Amino acid sequence: MSPLKIHYPNGQPYHYNKENYNSQSKEQSSNYSNRGMSLEKEINLTNKQYLDDNMAVIHKKPTPIQVVKVDYPKREAAKITEAYYRRSSTTDYNGVYKGYYLDFEAKETKNKTSFPLSNFHGHQINHMKKSVEHGGICFTILRFVTLDEIYLLSSEFLFKWWDQQYKEKGRKSIPLSAIKKENFLIEYGFNPRIPYLKIVDQFIESRK
Amino acid sequence: MSPLKIHYPNGQPYHYNKENYNSQSKEQSSNYSNRGMSLEKEINLTNKQYLDDNMAVIHKKPTPIQVVKVDYPKREAAKITEAYYRRSSTTDYNGVYKGYYLDFEAKETKNKTSFPLSNFHGHQINHMKKSVEHGGICFTILRFVTLDEIYLLSSEFLFKWWDQQYKEKGRKSIPLSAIKKENFLIEYGFNPRIPYLKIVDQFIESRK
Repeated sequence: MSPLKIHYPNGQPYHYNKENYNSQSKEQSSNYSNRGMSLEKEINLTNKQYLDDNMAVIHKKPTPIQVVKVDYPKREAAKITEAYYRRSSTTDYNGVYKGYYLDFEAKETKNKTSFPLSNFHGHQINHMKKSVEHGGICFTILRFVTLDEIYLLSSEFLFKWWDQQYKEKGRKSIPLSAIKKENFLIEYGFNPRIPYLKIVDQFIESRK
Repeated sequence: MSPLKIHYPNGQPYHYNKENYNSQSKEQSSNYSNRGMSLEKEINLTNKQYLDDNMAVIHKKPTPIQVVKVDYPKREAAKITEAYYRRSSTTDYNGVYKGYYLDFEAKETKNKTSFPLSNFHGHQINHMKKSVEHGGICFTILRFVTLDEIYLLSSEFLFKWWDQQYKEKGRKSIPLSAIKKENFLIEYGFNPRIPYLKIVDQFIESRK
Protein backbone atom coordinates (compact mmCIF):
# COMPACT_ATOMS: atom_id res chain seq x y z
CA MET A 1 0.00 0.00 0.00
CA SER A 2 1.40 3.38 -0.89
CA PRO A 3 2.39 5.72 1.94
CA LEU A 4 -0.01 8.25 0.42
CA LYS A 5 -2.87 6.14 1.63
CA ILE A 6 -1.84 6.31 5.25
CA HIS A 7 -4.68 7.51 7.36
CA TYR A 8 -3.47 10.29 9.63
CA PRO A 9 -5.48 11.11 12.72
CA ASN A 10 -6.87 14.62 12.99
CA GLY A 11 -3.97 15.57 15.20
CA GLN A 12 -1.75 15.91 12.13
CA PRO A 13 -3.60 18.38 9.98
CA TYR A 14 -0.49 19.57 8.12
CA HIS A 15 -1.22 16.61 5.87
CA TYR A 16 -4.70 17.84 5.24
CA ASN A 17 -5.62 18.18 1.63
CA LYS A 18 -8.73 17.27 -0.23
CA GLU A 19 -7.53 13.77 -1.06
CA ASN A 20 -6.67 12.84 2.51
CA TYR A 21 -9.76 14.52 3.79
CA ASN A 22 -12.01 12.46 1.56
CA SER A 23 -10.24 9.18 2.17
CA GLN A 24 -10.60 9.80 5.88
CA SER A 25 -14.35 10.36 5.70
CA LYS A 26 -14.73 7.26 3.56
CA GLU A 27 -12.67 5.21 5.98
CA GLN A 28 -14.66 6.35 8.93
CA SER A 29 -18.01 5.53 7.43
CA SER A 30 -16.94 2.06 6.27
CA ASN A 31 -15.53 0.97 9.61
CA TYR A 32 -18.23 -0.62 11.67
CA SER A 33 -16.71 -1.50 15.01
CA ASN A 34 -15.51 1.99 15.84
CA ARG A 35 -18.79 3.44 14.59
CA GLY A 36 -17.11 5.94 12.29
CA MET A 37 -15.19 7.53 15.10
CA SER A 38 -11.65 8.68 14.53
CA LEU A 39 -8.97 7.43 16.88
CA GLU A 40 -8.55 11.00 18.07
CA LYS A 41 -12.19 11.26 19.01
CA GLU A 42 -12.11 7.93 20.83
CA ILE A 43 -9.04 8.95 22.80
CA ASN A 44 -10.63 12.29 23.66
CA LEU A 45 -13.70 10.45 24.99
CA THR A 46 -11.43 8.09 26.90
CA ASN A 47 -9.57 11.01 28.47
CA LYS A 48 -12.85 12.67 29.38
CA GLN A 49 -13.95 9.47 31.09
CA TYR A 50 -10.65 9.25 32.99
CA LEU A 51 -11.13 12.88 34.06
CA ASP A 52 -14.75 12.30 35.12
CA ASP A 53 -13.65 9.22 37.08
CA ASN A 54 -10.91 11.33 38.68
CA MET A 55 -8.25 8.88 37.50
CA ALA A 56 -5.99 11.14 35.45
CA VAL A 57 -5.77 14.56 33.80
CA ILE A 58 -4.84 14.01 30.15
CA HIS A 59 -5.68 16.38 27.31
CA LYS A 60 -5.09 16.64 23.62
CA LYS A 61 -3.08 19.72 22.75
CA PRO A 62 -4.77 22.13 20.36
CA THR A 63 -3.71 21.88 16.74
CA PRO A 64 -0.96 24.44 16.08
CA ILE A 65 -2.17 27.09 13.67
CA GLN A 66 -0.18 29.97 12.21
CA VAL A 67 -2.44 33.00 12.16
CA VAL A 68 -1.67 35.48 9.38
CA LYS A 69 -4.65 37.84 9.26
CA VAL A 70 -7.22 38.77 11.88
CA ASP A 71 -10.20 41.08 11.59
CA TYR A 72 -11.34 42.94 14.69
CA PRO A 73 -14.96 43.83 13.99
CA LYS A 74 -16.60 46.22 16.46
CA ARG A 75 -18.45 44.46 19.28
CA GLU A 76 -17.74 41.06 17.79
CA ALA A 77 -15.21 38.33 18.36
CA ALA A 78 -11.91 38.60 16.52
CA LYS A 79 -12.20 36.75 13.20
CA ILE A 80 -9.21 34.96 11.74
CA THR A 81 -9.34 35.30 7.95
CA GLU A 82 -6.03 33.74 6.95
CA ALA A 83 -4.21 30.97 8.78
CA TYR A 84 -2.35 27.73 8.10
CA TYR A 85 -1.86 24.45 9.87
CA ARG A 86 1.60 24.06 11.35
CA ARG A 87 3.50 20.92 12.19
CA SER A 88 3.60 20.23 15.90
CA SER A 89 7.03 20.04 17.54
CA THR A 90 5.76 17.73 20.26
CA THR A 91 3.22 14.93 20.60
CA ASP A 92 -0.56 15.28 20.70
CA TYR A 93 -1.42 14.19 24.23
CA ASN A 94 0.05 14.75 27.66
CA GLY A 95 -0.95 15.02 31.27
CA VAL A 96 -0.55 13.56 34.74
CA TYR A 97 -1.42 10.12 36.15
CA LYS A 98 -0.45 8.83 39.60
CA GLY A 99 2.19 11.54 39.82
CA TYR A 100 3.74 10.55 36.49
CA TYR A 101 4.05 12.69 33.41
CA LEU A 102 2.40 10.91 30.47
CA ASP A 103 3.11 11.90 26.89
CA PHE A 104 1.87 10.04 23.85
CA GLU A 105 1.01 10.14 20.21
CA ALA A 106 -1.90 8.50 18.38
CA LYS A 107 -1.43 7.10 14.88
CA GLU A 108 -3.56 5.24 12.39
CA THR A 109 -2.61 3.27 9.33
CA LYS A 110 -4.55 1.40 6.65
CA ASN A 111 -1.61 -0.94 6.18
CA LYS A 112 -2.29 -4.52 7.18
CA THR A 113 1.15 -5.97 7.70
CA SER A 114 3.38 -3.17 8.95
CA PHE A 115 3.49 0.36 10.28
CA PRO A 116 5.49 2.85 8.17
CA LEU A 117 7.91 4.88 10.27
CA SER A 118 7.24 7.87 8.01
CA ASN A 119 4.12 8.38 10.14
CA PHE A 120 6.45 9.89 12.72
CA HIS A 121 8.61 12.95 12.40
CA GLY A 122 12.06 13.22 13.88
CA HIS A 123 11.09 16.03 16.26
CA GLN A 124 8.28 13.93 17.73
CA ILE A 125 10.70 11.09 18.45
CA ASN A 126 13.23 13.54 19.91
CA HIS A 127 10.53 15.04 22.09
CA MET A 128 9.62 11.59 23.42
CA LYS A 129 13.26 10.65 23.99
CA LYS A 130 13.79 13.85 26.00
CA SER A 131 10.59 13.31 27.97
CA VAL A 132 11.60 9.75 28.86
CA GLU A 133 15.04 11.02 29.90
CA HIS A 134 13.37 13.40 32.38
CA GLY A 135 11.21 10.69 33.90
CA GLY A 136 8.09 10.82 31.74
CA ILE A 137 6.19 7.79 30.48
CA CYS A 138 5.85 7.92 26.70
CA PHE A 139 4.10 5.62 24.28
CA THR A 140 2.12 5.44 21.06
CA ILE A 141 -1.46 4.34 20.58
CA LEU A 142 -1.54 2.77 17.15
CA ARG A 143 -4.59 1.65 15.25
CA PHE A 144 -4.49 -0.67 12.27
CA VAL A 145 -7.67 0.67 10.72
CA THR A 146 -8.36 -2.19 8.34
CA LEU A 147 -7.64 -4.88 10.93
CA ASP A 148 -9.44 -2.85 13.58
CA GLU A 149 -6.73 -3.55 16.12
CA ILE A 150 -5.22 -1.07 18.55
CA TYR A 151 -1.79 -1.51 20.09
CA LEU A 152 0.10 0.41 22.72
CA LEU A 153 3.74 0.67 21.70
CA SER A 154 6.29 1.33 24.40
CA SER A 155 8.74 4.14 23.76
CA GLU A 156 11.69 1.72 24.00
CA PHE A 157 10.21 -0.38 21.20
CA LEU A 158 9.51 2.67 19.03
CA PHE A 159 12.96 4.21 19.58
CA LYS A 160 14.64 0.90 18.70
CA TRP A 161 12.73 0.67 15.42
CA TRP A 162 13.12 4.38 14.66
CA ASP A 163 16.88 4.27 15.09
CA GLN A 164 17.43 1.08 13.04
CA GLN A 165 15.99 2.67 9.90
CA TYR A 166 19.14 4.78 9.53
CA LYS A 167 21.44 1.78 9.66
CA GLU A 168 22.50 -0.24 6.68
CA LYS A 169 19.61 -2.37 5.43
CA GLY A 170 17.39 -0.62 7.95
CA ARG A 171 13.65 -1.19 7.52
CA LYS A 172 11.36 1.76 6.88
CA SER A 173 8.41 0.17 8.62
CA ILE A 174 7.73 -1.94 11.70
CA PRO A 175 6.31 -5.38 10.85
CA LEU A 176 2.98 -6.12 12.53
CA SER A 177 4.47 -9.40 13.77
CA ALA A 178 7.08 -7.50 15.82
CA ILE A 179 4.41 -5.12 17.13
CA LYS A 180 2.23 -8.06 18.20
CA LYS A 181 5.12 -9.86 19.86
CA GLU A 182 6.58 -7.04 21.93
CA ASN A 183 3.64 -4.77 22.70
CA PHE A 184 0.16 -4.61 24.13
CA LEU A 185 -3.12 -5.12 22.31
CA ILE A 186 -5.73 -2.75 23.74
CA GLU A 187 -9.17 -4.32 23.92
CA TYR A 188 -12.03 -1.91 23.26
CA GLY A 189 -14.00 -1.09 26.36
CA PHE A 190 -17.36 0.51 26.85
CA ASN A 191 -16.27 3.40 29.01
CA PRO A 192 -13.45 4.24 28.64
CA ARG A 193 -13.37 2.98 25.07
CA ILE A 194 -9.60 2.69 24.85
CA PRO A 195 -8.47 1.77 28.39
CA TYR A 196 -4.79 2.53 27.89
CA LEU A 197 -4.08 3.39 31.54
CA LYS A 198 -4.27 -0.34 32.39
CA ILE A 199 -1.13 -0.77 30.33
CA VAL A 200 0.47 2.34 31.77
CA ASP A 201 -0.03 0.70 35.18
CA GLN A 202 2.23 -2.13 34.02
CA PHE A 203 4.92 0.40 33.01
CA ILE A 204 4.65 1.98 36.46
CA GLU A 205 4.84 -1.43 38.16
CA SER A 206 7.96 -2.34 36.23
CA ARG A 207 9.67 0.84 37.52
CA LYS A 208 9.22 -0.13 41.14
CA MET B 1 -7.69 50.69 37.63
CA SER B 2 -10.53 49.17 35.70
CA PRO B 3 -10.41 45.44 34.96
CA LEU B 4 -10.64 46.33 31.28
CA LYS B 5 -7.07 47.57 31.41
CA ILE B 6 -5.66 44.24 32.50
CA HIS B 7 -2.89 43.16 30.21
CA TYR B 8 -3.50 39.61 29.12
CA PRO B 9 -0.59 37.59 27.80
CA ASN B 10 -0.90 36.27 24.27
CA GLY B 11 -1.97 32.93 25.64
CA GLN B 12 -5.47 34.28 26.19
CA PRO B 13 -6.42 35.56 22.79
CA TYR B 14 -10.16 35.22 23.33
CA HIS B 15 -9.83 38.65 24.91
CA TYR B 16 -8.25 40.03 21.79
CA ASN B 17 -9.90 43.09 20.45
CA LYS B 18 -8.52 46.23 19.00
CA GLU B 19 -8.40 48.02 22.33
CA ASN B 20 -6.46 45.32 24.14
CA TYR B 21 -4.28 44.74 21.16
CA ASN B 22 -3.21 48.38 21.04
CA SER B 23 -2.73 48.73 24.76
CA GLN B 24 -0.55 45.64 24.70
CA SER B 25 1.73 46.99 21.98
CA LYS B 26 2.01 50.28 23.81
CA GLU B 27 2.84 48.53 27.07
CA GLN B 28 5.48 46.42 25.49
CA SER B 29 7.29 49.29 23.84
CA SER B 30 7.30 51.44 26.99
CA ASN B 31 8.75 48.77 29.25
CA TYR B 32 12.50 48.98 29.22
CA SER B 33 13.76 46.17 31.34
CA ASN B 34 12.04 43.39 29.46
CA ARG B 35 12.90 45.03 26.17
CA GLY B 36 9.36 44.99 24.87
CA MET B 37 9.06 41.27 25.23
CA SER B 38 5.78 39.77 26.36
CA LEU B 39 5.81 37.46 29.34
CA GLU B 40 4.81 34.66 27.01
CA LYS B 41 7.82 35.24 24.80
CA GLU B 42 10.16 35.38 27.76
CA ILE B 43 8.80 32.14 29.16
CA ASN B 44 9.09 30.49 25.75
CA LEU B 45 12.76 31.54 25.58
CA THR B 46 13.25 30.28 29.13
CA ASN B 47 11.72 26.92 28.22
CA LYS B 48 13.89 26.69 25.13
CA GLN B 49 16.96 27.32 27.27
CA TYR B 50 15.88 24.64 29.75
CA LEU B 51 15.42 22.24 26.83
CA ASP B 52 18.79 23.13 25.30
CA ASP B 53 20.43 22.65 28.70
CA ASN B 54 18.64 19.29 28.98
CA MET B 55 17.06 20.33 32.27
CA ALA B 56 13.36 19.97 31.50
CA VAL B 57 10.84 19.52 28.68
CA ILE B 58 8.25 22.29 29.02
CA HIS B 59 6.19 23.70 26.16
CA LYS B 60 3.48 26.24 25.66
CA LYS B 61 0.33 24.64 24.30
CA PRO B 62 -0.88 26.02 20.99
CA THR B 63 -3.68 28.57 21.18
CA PRO B 64 -7.00 26.75 20.68
CA ILE B 65 -8.64 27.87 17.46
CA GLN B 66 -12.04 26.88 16.13
CA VAL B 67 -11.69 26.37 12.39
CA VAL B 68 -14.86 27.11 10.41
CA LYS B 69 -13.76 27.26 6.76
CA VAL B 70 -10.78 25.78 4.98
CA ASP B 71 -9.77 26.11 1.34
CA TYR B 72 -7.85 23.26 -0.26
CA PRO B 73 -6.06 24.83 -3.21
CA LYS B 74 -4.39 22.42 -5.63
CA ARG B 75 -0.73 21.76 -4.86
CA GLU B 76 -0.77 24.26 -2.00
CA ALA B 77 -1.15 24.07 1.74
CA ALA B 78 -4.68 24.08 3.14
CA LYS B 79 -5.70 27.67 3.85
CA ILE B 80 -7.96 28.47 6.76
CA THR B 81 -10.25 31.34 5.77
CA GLU B 82 -12.54 31.56 8.77
CA ALA B 83 -11.64 30.72 12.34
CA TYR B 84 -12.08 32.04 15.87
CA TYR B 85 -10.06 31.99 19.05
CA ARG B 86 -11.44 29.64 21.66
CA ARG B 87 -11.04 29.72 25.40
CA SER B 88 -8.62 27.10 26.67
CA SER B 89 -9.96 24.54 29.13
CA THR B 90 -6.54 24.04 30.68
CA THR B 91 -3.44 26.11 31.41
CA ASP B 92 -0.88 27.38 28.91
CA TYR B 93 2.25 25.47 29.87
CA ASN B 94 3.05 21.93 30.91
CA GLY B 95 5.79 19.36 30.75
CA VAL B 96 8.17 17.19 32.74
CA TYR B 97 10.98 18.09 35.15
CA LYS B 98 12.89 15.63 37.35
CA GLY B 99 10.10 13.11 36.84
CA TYR B 100 7.42 15.57 37.96
CA TYR B 101 4.52 16.83 35.92
CA LEU B 102 4.61 20.64 35.82
CA ASP B 103 1.59 22.70 34.84
CA PHE B 104 1.38 26.45 35.00
CA GLU B 105 -0.24 29.59 33.77
CA ALA B 106 1.36 32.97 33.00
CA LYS B 107 -0.50 36.20 33.74
CA GLU B 108 0.26 39.90 33.49
CA THR B 109 -1.46 42.86 35.07
CA LYS B 110 -0.94 46.61 34.91
CA ASN B 111 -2.36 46.93 38.40
CA LYS B 112 0.13 48.13 40.99
CA THR B 113 -1.40 47.05 44.26
CA SER B 114 -3.31 43.84 43.62
CA PHE B 115 -3.99 41.07 41.14
CA PRO B 116 -7.63 40.74 40.03
CA LEU B 117 -8.88 37.16 40.25
CA SER B 118 -10.93 37.77 37.11
CA ASN B 119 -7.70 37.08 35.22
CA PHE B 120 -8.39 33.42 35.88
CA HIS B 121 -11.30 31.34 34.73
CA GLY B 122 -12.94 28.68 36.84
CA HIS B 123 -11.96 25.85 34.49
CA GLN B 124 -8.28 26.83 34.71
CA ILE B 125 -8.42 26.67 38.50
CA ASN B 126 -10.29 23.35 38.34
CA HIS B 127 -7.70 21.99 35.94
CA MET B 128 -4.90 22.97 38.33
CA LYS B 129 -6.73 21.53 41.34
CA LYS B 130 -7.16 18.21 39.53
CA SER B 131 -3.54 18.20 38.38
CA VAL B 132 -2.30 18.81 41.92
CA GLU B 133 -4.58 16.02 43.16
CA HIS B 134 -2.88 13.60 40.76
CA GLY B 135 0.60 14.57 41.86
CA GLY B 136 1.44 17.43 39.51
CA ILE B 137 3.23 20.64 40.52
CA CYS B 138 1.14 23.65 39.55
CA PHE B 139 1.84 27.35 39.88
CA THR B 140 1.36 30.74 38.26
CA ILE B 141 4.02 33.07 36.91
CA LEU B 142 2.64 36.54 37.49
CA ARG B 143 4.11 39.78 36.21
CA PHE B 144 3.17 43.18 37.55
CA VAL B 145 3.96 45.00 34.33
CA THR B 146 4.15 48.52 35.75
CA LEU B 147 6.27 47.47 38.73
CA ASP B 148 8.29 45.14 36.52
CA GLU B 149 8.18 42.43 39.13
CA ILE B 150 7.58 38.74 38.53
CA TYR B 151 6.28 36.37 41.19
CA LEU B 152 5.76 32.67 41.28
CA LEU B 153 2.51 31.88 43.07
CA SER B 154 2.07 28.44 44.55
CA SER B 155 -1.14 26.63 43.70
CA GLU B 156 -2.09 26.43 47.41
CA PHE B 157 -1.89 30.22 47.65
CA LEU B 158 -3.90 30.73 44.48
CA PHE B 159 -6.59 28.19 45.42
CA LYS B 160 -6.99 29.81 48.85
CA TRP B 161 -7.53 33.24 47.32
CA TRP B 162 -9.70 31.90 44.52
CA ASP B 163 -12.03 30.11 46.94
CA GLN B 164 -12.36 33.02 49.40
CA GLN B 165 -13.86 35.31 46.73
CA TYR B 166 -17.13 33.33 46.88
CA LYS B 167 -17.48 33.75 50.64
CA GLU B 168 -19.21 36.64 52.29
CA LYS B 169 -17.08 39.80 52.01
CA GLY B 170 -14.70 37.85 49.78
CA ARG B 171 -12.12 39.93 47.93
CA LYS B 172 -12.08 39.95 44.14
CA SER B 173 -8.34 40.50 43.95
CA ILE B 174 -5.19 39.38 45.74
CA PRO B 175 -3.34 42.25 47.43
CA LEU B 176 0.27 42.62 46.33
CA SER B 177 1.28 42.62 49.99
CA ALA B 178 -0.09 39.08 50.40
CA ILE B 179 1.62 37.98 47.19
CA LYS B 180 4.95 39.40 48.37
CA LYS B 181 4.63 37.83 51.81
CA GLU B 182 3.73 34.28 50.83
CA ASN B 183 5.34 33.72 47.44
CA PHE B 184 8.56 33.93 45.50
CA LEU B 185 9.98 36.90 43.62
CA ILE B 186 11.69 35.68 40.46
CA GLU B 187 14.84 37.66 39.67
CA TYR B 188 15.49 38.14 35.96
CA GLY B 189 18.37 36.12 34.68
CA PHE B 190 20.36 36.31 31.49
CA ASN B 191 19.75 32.80 30.27
CA PRO B 192 17.23 31.57 31.22
CA ARG B 193 15.54 34.94 31.63
CA ILE B 194 12.89 33.75 34.08
CA PRO B 195 14.58 30.97 36.08
CA TYR B 196 11.44 29.52 37.62
CA LEU B 197 12.77 25.98 38.01
CA LYS B 198 14.88 27.18 40.96
CA ILE B 199 11.64 27.76 42.81
CA VAL B 200 10.13 24.49 41.60
CA ASP B 201 13.18 22.83 43.18
CA GLN B 202 12.03 24.20 46.53
CA PHE B 203 8.55 22.70 45.98
CA ILE B 204 10.17 19.36 45.20
CA GLU B 205 12.42 19.57 48.27
CA SER B 206 9.44 20.28 50.50
CA ARG B 207 7.76 17.08 49.26
CA LYS B 208 10.61 14.89 50.42
